[in-house]
Order: sequence, then C-alpha cells, then structure tokens
Amino acid sequence: MSEQKRVAIIGAGPSGLAQLRAFQSAKAKGAAIPDIVCYEKQKDWGGMWNYTWRTGLDENGEPVHGSMYRYLWSNGPKECLEFADYSFDEHFKRPISSYPPREVLWDYIQGRVKKAGVRDHIRFNTAVKSVTFDEATRKFTVTAMDYTADRLTSDEFDYVVVATGHFSTPHVPEFEGFDRFPGRILHAHDFRDAAEFKGKDVLLVGSSYSAEDIGSQCYKYGAKSITTSYRTKPMGYQWPEGWTEKPLLERVEGNIAHFKDGSSRHADAIILCTGYQHDFPFLPDELRLKTNNRLWPLGLYEGVVFTANPQLMYLGMQDQWYSFNMFDAQAWFARDVMLGRIALPGRDDMDQANLRWRETEEAIATDAEAFEFQGAYIERLIGMTDYPWFDIRAVNQIFLQWKKDKKADIMGYRDKTYTSVLTGTKSTPHHTRWLEALDDSLEAYLRQSPKASVAINRQPQQGRKVAKPAEPKRQNAA
Amino acid sequence: MSEQKRVAIIGAGPSGLAQLRAFQSAKAKGAAIPDIVCYEKQKDWGGMWNYTWRTGLDENGEPVHGSMYRYLWSNGPKECLEFADYSFDEHFKRPISSYPPREVLWDYIQGRVKKAGVRDHIRFNTAVKSVTFDEATRKFTVTAMDYTADRLTSDEFDYVVVATGHFSTPHVPEFEGFDRFPGRILHAHDFRDAAEFKGKDVLLVGSSYSAEDIGSQCYKYGAKSITTSYRTKPMGYQWPEGWTEKPLLERVEGNIAHFKDGSSRHADAIILCTGYQHDFPFLPDELRLKTNNRLWPLGLYEGVVFTANPQLMYLGMQDQWYSFNMFDAQAWFARDVMLGRIALPGRDDMDQANLRWRETEEAIATDAEAFEFQGAYIERLIGMTDYPWFDIRAVNQIFLQWKKDKKADIMGYRDKTYTSVLTGTKSTPHHTRWLEALDDSLEAYLRQSPKASVAINRQPQQGRKVAKPAEPKRQNAA
Repeated sequence: MSEQKRVAIIGAGPSGLAQLRAFQSAKAKGAAIPDIVCYEKQKDWGGMWNYTWRTGLDENGEPVHGSMYRYLWSNGPKECLEFADYSFDEHFKRPISSYPPREVLWDYIQGRVKKAGVRDHIRFNTAVKSVTFDEATRKFTVTAMDYTADRLTSDEFDYVVVATGHFSTPHVPEFEGFDRFPGRILHAHDFRDAAEFKGKDVLLVGSSYSAEDIGSQCYKYGAKSITTSYRTKPMGYQWPEGWTEKPLLERVEGNIAHFKDGSSRHADAIILCTGYQHDFPFLPDELRLKTNNRLWPLGLYEGVVFTANPQLMYLGMQDQWYSFNMFDAQAWFARDVMLGRIALPGRDDMDQANLRWRETEEAIATDAEAFEFQGAYIERLIGMTDYPWFDIRAVNQIFLQWKKDKKADIMGYRDKTYTSVLTGTKSTPHHTRWLEALDDSLEAYLRQSPKASVAINRQPQQGRKVAKPAEPKRQNAA
Repeated sequence: MSEQKRVAIIGAGPSGLAQLRAFQSAKAKGAAIPDIVCYEKQKDWGGMWNYTWRTGLDENGEPVHGSMYRYLWSNGPKECLEFADYSFDEHFKRPISSYPPREVLWDYIQGRVKKAGVRDHIRFNTAVKSVTFDEATRKFTVTAMDYTADRLTSDEFDYVVVATGHFSTPHVPEFEGFDRFPGRILHAHDFRDAAEFKGKDVLLVGSSYSAEDIGSQCYKYGAKSITTSYRTKPMGYQWPEGWTEKPLLERVEGNIAHFKDGSSRHADAIILCTGYQHDFPFLPDELRLKTNNRLWPLGLYEGVVFTANPQLMYLGMQDQWYSFNMFDAQAWFARDVMLGRIALPGRDDMDQANLRWRETEEAIATDAEAFEFQGAYIERLIGMTDYPWFDIRAVNQIFLQWKKDKKADIMGYRDKTYTSVLTGTKSTPHHTRWLEALDDSLEAYLRQSPKASVAINRQPQQGRKVAKPAEPKRQNAA
C-alpha cells in the first residue's frame, strides 16, 4: 500500500475553496482522498470577497490580496455564477435579486464550504513564500510564513494547486507628469470607498470592467465629474450627464490631464483601471505560468494542468466570463487527475490540444462567441467528472441578455432579474433600485427586503431538463 | 592563494551605498577587495530618497520601498548627517540652507557615489527573494528576481550585508469602524501629496515624526483642520490654529472619530502614522533580525554583525538620530570585518557586549542622552576604521539646538541655520521661509537662491579640531 498522497492548495478564495469542496465531495461518496493543506495569506476565507479596508501591505507586510471595494454589487447576473452543487435557493431560502452586493455573495460562498466542513484544512495568516520541485523525489517543497507563529514552515507535497487568482497584482503604467500630479493617483486595486471622491473630478484610465464599475460607483456616490480614457475604443454606453469618454491619456500637467486628441480635462484624482498581472512571486521560473489575461492561456492542459509539470495545477487563470462554476468544473477535474481517475496524455498531446483550443480562441469575434467558447470548455470539463450538470447553453443566453440590458441602461441593468437554470427560480427585484441603494450590507439587503413575492421553485431542476452529453469525456474510472 | 571572496549587499539606499563606498575607498588605497554584487529592487539608487508617486505595489508587483512624499524637507539639520568624506561644500560648491528638501539631499547622496564610480556593482530592478546559508560550505545563496530579464537568479556569497532599511513595511493597526469609514484611510508609508487633503479634516494617528511632519505638510498645503491622536502623551508643540492634539483614537462611526477621552472630531481622511516594522521577507528565521525600533537592537555585535552568524551584517537597523554618517561608520566597520582587518570575539563575548550596550540604552532618560548614546556608538566605530574623524560632540550640540529650535517654533525651525563641523561653513538661510516654500524642486532651490552671502570656509577642518581618541579600538590590522 502506497503512502497517502499530499496536496497543497494555495489560496482559500473561490478557486481554492472549490478544490477543498471537490475533495470533500469525493470523500463523502466514499473515496480515499489525499492529505490536504490549504494555505491562506488572509485571516479568513473568501479571497477577493473577504473585504478589507487595507491597501498596499497588510498587517504582516504582505501585499494586500483584495481588490474589492465597498458598495460593490455583482456586475453580472448571479444566475451565471451559481454553484451547481449549492444553489442560491438552498442558501437564502428565498429568491433574491440577480445582482447582489459583495457581502451577500461572500455569505453564499461561505455557505457551501461551511456545510462541507472544510475549514480545518486551511492554514490562515500563512503566506506561501516559495515552491520548489525535486526531480528525484518528484515532490514539491512548499515554504510558507506562518505569521501567527512568526516562523517559516516547510512541507512536502505530491501535488500543488495554485488558486491565488489573477486580480491582485496591479498593472500600473506611468504617464508623464505623474510624479508632479497634486492629488491622489491609485490603481483600481487600491480603490476602496467612492465617498472619498465626492465632489471631485475623477479621471479613470481604462475602458474595461474596472473603469466602468468604479466610474459608476463614483458617479453614484457623488463625484463631480467622471472622465474615462480608452486606448482602443470607447465603452460606448449611454453615460449619465457628467461622464465623458476620452482617448488615451497622454500626460498630466498639474491638475490638467491631456489626451491623445489634444483635448484636456481637470482632474482631482486619477484611478488607473489598467488591469492586473498574472503574478506568482512564490514560484520558480520553471513552474511559473506566464500569460496575459485571455480565454485560453497556453501551458495548461484542459486549462488546468501545467503541462511542463503535470503535478502542478492552476485554477481560474482564464479571463473570466464564467467564474465560480468554472472554478468548480476545474477543481473537480483537477481532483480527478490527482485521484488517478483521469489519465493525462503525454506532454506533446497536451501541448497539441492546447494549440487547438488557442486556434479556436483566436477566431473569436464577438462577446457571444467568447462566453460560448468558455461555456463549451466548462461543458467539456464537467463531462469528465461528477460535478452536477447544468444547462450551460441557457446560461450563455443569460449572458447575452445581460449584455443587452447593460447596453440599454448602464445605470439600471442591475435592476433586471433572470431565472436560475438550476432551480427554475426567478429572481425578485431588490427592494431599492441599484442607483439609490447606498447601503450594501447583507443586513440591509435581507432585512429591508419585502416579503418575497415569488416562491422558490421547490422542484430541483438539477440535471433534469438537460441531458448530459452522450459521450462523457471521462478517460478513466476510479 | 584563496579564491576571491564574494559579498552581497541588499539595497542601494544610503546604507548600501555607504557599503559600496567603503569598499571602493579601501580599493583606492590599494587594498584587494571582494567581488561585490549590490541588489536593488528599484530602477535607480538612493532608496527612500528616490521618490516615487507609486504606492502599494510597484510595476513589478513588489511592495513599493519608498515612504517618501512630495515636498519633504529634511526634519533635522543637514549638519547632523553630513558625510565625513564628502561635504556639502564639496557637492554644492557654495553654502546652502540647513534643512534642504528631498531632491537636494538625493542629489547630495548621489554626488558621492557618482564620484566613487560604484554604480556598476548594482543590479537594478532586481528583488532579493531569499537568502539561505549552507553550514557545510559556509556560503550564502542569494536568490533574486531580475525583473528586467524576467528570471530568477541564484548566486553564492561569503558575506551578506542587509541594507534594506526599516521604514518600508508599515505597522498598520485597525480601529473599530475602519471597514465602514467613508473616506481614505492610509498609512504614512502611502502618503505622497498633501495637496490631496486640501480643504479636508485630516486625522493623523500617532505622535512621532511622521505625524508631526505629515500634519505640518497638510497644514502648509491647505488642510481645513489637523487632528493628531497620541497613545502616550501629546507632542506638545505650539501648533498653529486648526491643529488639535487628542488622546488615542477609540473608534470611528461614519466620519466621526471618537477618542479615549470621550471627545470626537469629524474626519475626511485618516493617516496612520503608526510606525514601521523591521521586516526581512527574504530571510529565513535563523538569519532574521527580530527587533522593534530602538537605539540598541540585540543580536548585532557593534550594532552591525549578526552574532548568530557573523558572515551576515545589518546596516542602519537602529532608531536613527544620526543617519547617513552612522550608516557610513557601520559600513566601514563591516568592511573591515569582511576584509579581516577586524577580528571578531566569540559569540558569548559578542552577546555580553550587546547586553552592556542594552543596559546603557535602557538607562537613557532624555533626548539629549539618546543622541549622545548614538554619538558615542559612532565614535567607537569610527575609532576602529579609517572613516574620516569628525567632531561628534559638536554634532550632539547641533541636535540639542535643533530640539530647542523646534520647541520654540515648530512651523519655523527649518528657517534656522547651523555650522558644519566638517568644514566650518555656516549655512545660509533659504531664499524663502519654509512655510511659504511650496516648490521643493532642486531647480527652484538652487536657481532662485540669491547669491551666497557667506563664503565657503576653504580650510577643511576634517580631523583638525578634534583629536581621535587615544585608544582606537581597532583590534586587528590588515
């Protein structure tokens, strides 16, 4: 009998928790599972969803993980990220709205893992400092700083799962004049409270989700004006009065921002919504994924297994239309690889498969094709494991509707509701329109809510309406 | 003939540059010196004095080293930090004022090392990730991330000099209500531009140099009110109107800060001037200095040599009255240990010596005793090396006068002038009173200056008025 395998999971956010839940699910069904240690830098779980007022460095001198800000409400329908094994109905016992605020989603994320009882696997307040791999023993050594005990720990593992996310290390470009700008310059990563910018002229550099959402926050909480600056093309929404889109920032002179088209605007503060880096400061070159933010990073078989060393897994490294449920699909797949239920092809075959995915990815021309691509990827993963099946084509349709709703009303789309593909439950509108909902606490969200007018659909629909594909891709049974 | 020794210096700020200059000085006098590699995380030298507008994480995802802010003017007389081997006269060719702004001091720091020609030893944009020591070979392995080449490097050394400072990793306490405070909360480490706080009610938590100086900055650049909050006792200066001292902050509720004495104040922003941690994330437990900020940290022989492993040196780890010239004295001493010119006693003797220093330190009751203690320490170090002698007792007197000048006029003390103990040159007043000097650039400082009214004293006084102590403590000659 071989000794028990050991698995290190780095990070206890949605991806790391998905991995813990995946193993616990197998165990609950009678499987023998490895010894698992999950390292978490923060003092609590939930990753990004565990809000902190801190910026820069945390109480231990570690980079603050969170890019989360106050008053964040989901910017996509919750029906697109619902855990297939733990519905919103199961957690909240009543319908809620489709775009809940941060604390509500954090509560939901925690509900599943509390139920699963996986907290004891996690070493909190412990930051992984380095991972090395010994070719001779084929084991990893994970060195981590345990800040509670104030000492470095070192442990050996057969598998390492990197679940640290890729929205923590900001990409921070410099523009001419920044060193003399008389006001605050920050990256979206350090944005916390829109109230700080009340009455201010705010310049946001960028045209993706951060610029759109942080700009909307600043608008909602009373900024004097919003200017967003794009490199390629304007976001093109129907912005409210006081919101201007400009071409790329060229330089600042004092408080005046100058743009590529020769125009200029006064700015009291500059928020760089310029994206994030895939950053793994604890990994040596040969184990480090190098990619930008895209739907199909190379180097990961099935988007998960590091082809250069298949004992190393990465979760959630893709650009994300799908999020929680994609991490789940990946975690279940990674689990089955680690349990030996799924056999991996050779390096060349893995790399070839990757190039085919990349080719498809590169042909993507529309947003709809992008989330269909990612949906198809998730379908494929779920086909290989026992993660509960759900109607991904129907979720793609919700994404499509969401895009339309945003286009129609960028300040009002969060008041829309959609229907869960898992439970058939239709969301209820929140008691207050998003633009007027200034209190985003769980308490306010639940307490003030009028009695749910739509009953939960008591017929669980999981796996009911949609047949699993005829040829599940499982290559190997346990 | 033994192979050439190798020395790693971590950091190219005032301490690391002192170490480079110390070796170069020995070489210029004909000594054989080791192979030296200096690692610097930033793209330029000067450490803290190399101002950056960045906060949090830098362009590489590394914690920003600098705690420097715009408009910083020296808060102590330049006559107390003058390099004994490179006077202000030599650099500026004319008398300047006693409290120059940041860029002027950076220029001065660079002047010496440009003259010494040591830049080629420095690997810029390279962050040390780990240092290990092999007991068998008695060599260190320094692993560093070279961000220019995007690869980890690994090199062996006989000695490692830690010169990374201790004002980079903030100590950031949490107070009740911080997670719901509707405004910016930052540590002094992330303070950059006082203009951000114009018209604001600013609360500063702390009563040491950061609170005093950042509060003064905010006052100077137009804050509506300044409140500083002390744990032990008020700073007790004659603050200008609009500046209030309060006991320790207890909690915030919305924008209202509540203090221990039951009083409260409105705050738009909170700046935590709560100090820094000695933090060496690249060092394993057994090589890591553990201390708070004090005049005599234990574990360092002569305040420099790590007694648990005397191949490891630390520079500048003391609480600092003296700064640049203390780093110099330490660097020359460390150099002579590494060159074998100074023999170290055994571990027990080193630890005993430390305890005696600590005993003296603990008896210190006044500020005057504190800088006299540190002055005596520097005298002792210089007595053991060929670092140019200077009249430290006279510098102590300047510190004493500085304390008096601050006490008399906290908003005006920077307009005072003192006389160099090295050159006998009396500083000239700056062309503009500090409180009105809003442009702190080197250009404005030098350009607008009226013709110097006091000529440089052409008689170098180095070593002239003060005899070196009769019994230099050098224990071993090269």
